[in-house]
Amino acid sequence: MKVKLIIGCSEINSDLYYATKFLAPDDFIYLEKADGKKIIYINAMEFSRAREDARVDEVINSSIYPSKYKSVLHWVVAAGGLTEVVVPEDFPIKYGEILRKARVRIEIKSGIFFEEREIKDEEEIKNIKAAQRVNEKGMKSAIETIRKSKIRKDGKLEYKNKIVTSEFLKEIVDIEFLRGGCKSDVNIVSCGKDSAQPHNMGSGPLRGNEPIIIDLYPRSVKTRYFADMTRTVVRGRASEEIRKIYSTVLSAQRRALESVRAGIKISSLEKNVREQFHGAGYETEHDDKVSQGFIHSLGHGVGLDIHEAPFVGRMNENELKAGNIITIEPGLYFPKIGGVRIEDMVLVKDGGSENLTKFPKTLEI
Amino acid sequence: MKVKLIIGCSEINSDLYYATKFLAPDDFIYLEKADGKKIIYINAMEFSRAREDARVDEVINSSIYPSKYKSVLHWVVAAGGLTEVVVPEDFPIKYGEILRKARVRIEIKSGIFFEEREIKDEEEIKNIKAAQRVNEKGMKSAIETIRKSKIRKDGKLEYKNKIVTSEFLKEIVDIEFLRGGCKSDVNIVSCGKDSAQPHNMGSGPLRGNEPIIIDLYPRSVKTRYFADMTRTVVRGRASEEIRKIYSTVLSAQRRALESVRAGIKISSLEKNVREQFHGAGYETEHDDKVSQGFIHSLGHGVGLDIHEAPFVGRMNENELKAGNIITIEPGLYFPKIGGVRIEDMVLVKDGGSENLTKFPKTLEI
Repeated sequence: MKVKLIIGCSEINSDLYYATKFLAPDDFIYLEKADGKKIIYINAMEFSRAREDARVDEVINSSIYPSKYKSVLHWVVAAGGLTEVVVPEDFPIKYGEILRKARVRIEIKSGIFFEEREIKDEEEIKNIKAAQRVNEKGMKSAIETIRKSKIRKDGKLEYKNKIVTSEFLKEIVDIEFLRGGCKSDVNIVSCGKDSAQPHNMGSGPLRGNEPIIIDLYPRSVKTRYFADMTRTVVRGRASEEIRKIYSTVLSAQRRALESVRAGIKISSLEKNVREQFHGAGYETEHDDKVSQGFIHSLGHGVGLDIHEAPFVGRMNENELKAGNIITIEPGLYFPKIGGVRIEDMVLVKDGGSENLTKFPKTLEI
Repeated sequence: MKVKLIIGCSEINSDLYYATKFLAPDDFIYLEKADGKKIIYINAMEFSRAREDARVDEVINSSIYPSKYKSVLHWVVAAGGLTEVVVPEDFPIKYGEILRKARVRIEIKSGIFFEEREIKDEEEIKNIKAAQRVNEKGMKSAIETIRKSKIRKDGKLEYKNKIVTSEFLKEIVDIEFLRGGCKSDVNIVSCGKDSAQPHNMGSGPLRGNEPIIIDLYPRSVKTRYFADMTRTVVRGRASEEIRKIYSTVLSAQRRALESVRAGIKISSLEKNVREQFHGAGYETEHDDKVSQGFIHSLGHGVGLDIHEAPFVGRMNENELKAGNIITIEPGLYFPKIGGVRIEDMVLVKDGGSENLTKFPKTLEI
């Protein structure tokens, strides 16, 4: 009898949340039997709440396991007669050891655990779209503030007699997110040299005539689904170099978006972008001091995790499927110039795609 | 040569953040050699940022590993001559398999990986205190709104002509958190029957003359440290039962707080609380339908994780140490009546403790 087994806390482990729709901050055990029956073992504190809310067939109070067993898992193995389990690849090694010692065969499922998570159903699409609408409000509030700012003589942006900082814009965005029922752990608002590092979150004063990357990925408090979007703007005039980089990235993104459809090989999308960058004279280079050019992959799936399957990169030889929701986010980064990234989130369909991101793309504001 | 090995993403894995002070959303590899030298292997996108910010001795660009290796980890094992590693208990099983096949001996460290995380240094204490100050502002804004609300004829609370909901109060709290440079993933504001489930986050209208549990645990955006606090209030008049439960919980908490000091056996703290509850006639009972009474443990450590060592429960036979920061949060929960929980966060010292929570405790407001 081969059963699926997950142990973790569903506030972090999205497979566990996906399987149970129950949110808890401490580890619990999920079993899915060969016949599809779902069982969770959860402590007394969560027990009555789980009985009401968890979308499973049975909830067992793990705080009352018989004292002859060393742990709840020992009890589950013995009482459930477990002989063979399938676990996700991030299954904690300590539980793996308990299973091994109890002579339970462990199959580690590589990659995505629940393959159906890659294909969003109507409710999931609705949830992600709703989060992207809130994301657009956050993006708008940030960009409108930049647009209304004036460039001081020292180059810093000023709004209502105050220096505009990365932190200030992130707070404005966070308040929009809250109003829309979303939260984010991290927002990126990075300017100038900082923008040359894709995950530099940004700090301090923003400056005119320099690229500002705004990458926002809020999560709905209620549904737990994410949205994702990036825009790059310059208050004032962009340098010639940044304008050329921007138009190269924008054109590569447009062509990638036009290519997205069910059945296309995922690797081809990124390879095409890399060829366009190469053709425009932008090489990607790594050494032991610096990485520059197009130094990340083209995109990723979005759902209960901000980065999830399918991963949209040149190593992924799978095909896109209808119902995938992915980002298309080419970027170019040069330490001496800065960075540009433009990111939309799209729903893959037969014969094409639906761009779930309505926010305009304008470099100079 | 036995080395410490962690693989994970430091936005979730606090050991990894603790060791590197570098925040990244995707997996990277951390090695700490026997001589204390710290090395991280991280992808090209994060490489230059990590070189600037990560508090380690060496940063290696993992995107340029030689193509003869199947993965970065295969390369690290071969090139680094790894023969024996110590990993945390939540180490992902997929990496464990790679190590096993490469004949690397794996020692799984049970419990806390970096024992020094239990003992907060001055900077950590400062960070946690600062987060608790912001938490108190959030708690104050919630409780003041409840205090100023009127009880309608149908029992619901009303403030400025609007029904006061759990969601509304959580948004007020979140905005206070943002203003103070903190964020929270989840806030609990649960009323009436909902309050009988310790982790019921609460929803819908709040009601007068019923217990409202407010449990808040913001995290500083900048330092990543958490704070934690719970108060239980009633707008209007509490029932006799709730008043008796409240005074029992408050008195048990006071005695536990008075007992906290370096050297005391952790289990004794919770056992004393359980005895007091028993003495007051409140039994803890579990069956296959319901759990009621004191159905969680007395507290937990707080730091880069909201729940971390030392865990303050009756099974923990260790002693408290100076520098531990723990919660003391007795609670009583009865499905037909509701729940009461009162939680302070304290710093353990030689001969006593410092209560890091200044917020008053008042049942009826």
